[in-house]
Amino acid sequence: MASAANVSSPDKVPVLTAEVLLAHWQGHRRLTRRMIEAFPEDKLFSFSVGGMRPFSELAMEFVKMAAPIACGVATGKWTSFGEAASPKTKAALLALWDQSTEEINAVWPTIPAHRFAEVDKAFGQWENSGINTILYAIDNETHHRGQGYVYLRALGIEPPAFYDRS
Amino acid sequence: MASAANVSSPDKVPVLTAEVLLAHWQGHRRLTRRMIEAFPEDKLFSFSVGGMRPFSELAMEFVKMAAPIACGVATGKWTSFGEAASPKTKAALLALWDQSTEEINAVWPTIPAHRFAEVDKAFGQWENSGINTILYAIDNETHHRGQGYVYLRALGIEPPAFYDRS
Repeated sequence: MASAANVSSPDKVPVLTAEVLLAHWQGHRRLTRRMIEAFPEDKLFSFSVGGMRPFSELAMEFVKMAAPIACGVATGKWTSFGEAASPKTKAALLALWDQSTEEINAVWPTIPAHRFAEVDKAFGQWENSGINTILYAIDNETHHRGQGYVYLRALGIEPPAFYDRS
Repeated sequence: MASAANVSSPDKVPVLTAEVLLAHWQGHRRLTRRMIEAFPEDKLFSFSVGGMRPFSELAMEFVKMAAPIACGVATGKWTSFGEAASPKTKAALLALWDQSTEEINAVWPTIPAHRFAEVDKAFGQWENSGINTILYAIDNETHHRGQGYVYLRALGIEPPAFYDRS
């Protein structure tokens, strides 16, 4: 337990390093990969609730954001959002997923320290700091993956454990 | 765009301060509050898809985690998870929500800097660093709130914009 002497204003306290953030993000991405695997092939590309997009389209949104955001924060160069063609099979989607994983890991150590706080226009459209753009990508994945959990439950399929990021 | 001279290994690079993290969390919590408001009173406590919990129960899970986690990371003292009684009306749930918001804001500046990296057993059960326990609370809220978006769509109700955290 903390003593009063340990207490300091946390306003400028760094709470997260780039290393921990990458591990956090890739943990989320491993869980999302298991979600893709959990869908039956046909349902992955067709099933939805309430007129929302099937999980394959949500997963492709994550692919289109993830590595391009890591690269954009690293270099200031933004590829057009949504350039990647959509795969037609689960295997092709998973291959694209794994390629993104490698791209993120490769570009991450090249991100200049100042770029996390620096404000840039992601994809030429969304103005935010590098850290907030990365957090948005993680949040967006978590948000839509939660949607995918409902799809699986509605299909009578037990989704992967949310807390397991191994 | 970054020059090679700007590139440094980001492993130990701090990318997020306590101040930015609090703003990020409270932004998420404002969106979740709008989700609670968006549900018709009866559906908030009863509607679900795929046998999952109604949104009121998900929101109560967030309440039971949020301020107690901020306090636990600040002090090392953990209240029992799940002590709060569940409200029976939307107004009572929103009042509890706003009380949590104030509690988090009040305790946040007292979190000792070292507690974000320090490993503790949250609620006496979940061993993790302070930062990871806080990120888990945010992720869990984002995940289940995404589930709530499906409930609203299935009810034919337009959910609040995901990107708006004002």
